[in-house]
Amino acid sequence: MKIALRLSYLGTDFCGYQVQPGLPTVQSALNEATKGLFGVPCDITGCSRTDSGVHANDFCVAVTEKGKTFLNTNVPLEKIPIALNVRLPLGISVRSAELVDESFHPRYDVLLKEYVYLIRDSKIRDPFTEGRVYSFSRSISDEGIAKMNHAASLLCGRHDFSSYMASGSKVESTVRDMKYASVCRNGDIVKITLAADGFLYNMVRIIAGTLLDVGEERIDPCDIPRITNAHDRSLAGATLPACGLYLNKVVY
Amino acid sequence: MKIALRLSYLGTDFCGYQVQPGLPTVQSALNEATKGLFGVPCDITGCSRTDSGVHANDFCVAVTEKGKTFLNTNVPLEKIPIALNVRLPLGISVRSAELVDESFHPRYDVLLKEYVYLIRDSKIRDPFTEGRVYSFSRSISDEGIAKMNHAASLLCGRHDFSSYMASGSKVESTVRDMKYASVCRNGDIVKITLAADGFLYNMVRIIAGTLLDVGEERIDPCDIPRITNAHDRSLAGATLPACGLYLNKVVY
Repeated sequence: MKIALRLSYLGTDFCGYQVQPGLPTVQSALNEATKGLFGVPCDITGCSRTDSGVHANDFCVAVTEKGKTFLNTNVPLEKIPIALNVRLPLGISVRSAELVDESFHPRYDVLLKEYVYLIRDSKIRDPFTEGRVYSFSRSISDEGIAKMNHAASLLCGRHDFSSYMASGSKVESTVRDMKYASVCRNGDIVKITLAADGFLYNMVRIIAGTLLDVGEERIDPCDIPRITNAHDRSLAGATLPACGLYLNKVVY
Repeated sequence: MKIALRLSYLGTDFCGYQVQPGLPTVQSALNEATKGLFGVPCDITGCSRTDSGVHANDFCVAVTEKGKTFLNTNVPLEKIPIALNVRLPLGISVRSAELVDESFHPRYDVLLKEYVYLIRDSKIRDPFTEGRVYSFSRSISDEGIAKMNHAASLLCGRHDFSSYMASGSKVESTVRDMKYASVCRNGDIVKITLAADGFLYNMVRIIAGTLLDVGEERIDPCDIPRITNAHDRSLAGATLPACGLYLNKVVY
């Protein structure tokens, strides 16, 4: 057996998920904490490689002994989250731990990932959401939100999403299945929700930029299928900043 | 005329409101920013002196030229918030500015102040509310919340609140008029709301500690009037940490 952990982290405190020598990352913090708790060096396999500043409300990692496919431990499963949290920086919390089969892979076995992108549209900044939303100084109208939601709905289904992929990325297939996509307002926060079987590099941030262009009437919602089908990154909107992005849910 | 500013700030970033030599405080940041914008040293008079780590969603200060009862400026009123925000640390935001009479005093003229105290009752920590709530590791039952709310309701009205004042405080009168007081749960956050014409030193944090004792059944709600009328600090609960406290509203 191996152990799967569900965690959340505040991306502001880390240079992304993946280990980078000399920099604080989520993976390196988990390497330290698991070694401390389990008494052996461990391999940490994550469900995603989030960029610097990207947050996670739900992130899954598998923990195995270094170079092995399993982890043997006497630590009771229900004690693992708190025992790891005392060894982790405050910006990370292990929420739960479960035993999983040795064949389980946090990245390859994902059925659905849900991302949320938050835009705060106000001239006046807010100290409480600093680094946790994208601060946009113009206000988006109710009509703009409705258009963004319409545009989002047109992204659903199985498409080649390469128009919304950072140029230069290398992947075998750029086809993904968008399960749901919506835009709504909650107070001064505009919330974009996207769920798919997988995402391309920077896909959520580029879609968020494209939807913002729709909200500001630079792109008509009806042009979304044309942009998608052109497989041309230059037709989509800007890549919005990392700080507004949350990996919100991972389903296996 | 003088200028009244409404601001919010994240207390985590400051050693309280009031100027302390060599330490980052809200008042000293405002001193710097107003001097930069208005071109003269200013006096900043606040509605309250919040402690280190206490937050404000709504805080009022009056700005006058140093040693004067007025401020003359050519800066258009509607440009003042953004012009000050570019000169302030990210933990403070000036939300609005208005012209007020020279007789206006942010502290003496208050009709009502509303404070909120947030308790997160979960064994598993949350990186997103770190330093923004009081983290309490035991969970409070629904019945506990109902009892806390009952106890809070018994604080309403005009009372001598010296049982809930930090010992050693010096004030002319310890009588205050509690306008409303309630406790409710929102997800894993227990929210205590208290509004009065004024508060004694540490009063909200001591009442929050007393209500937490009620929620954990160490104090019966029906004992609250007895504790209040004893004017004895030792009968009330602990002073909860600053990080859960928000000055939420100031009414003139």
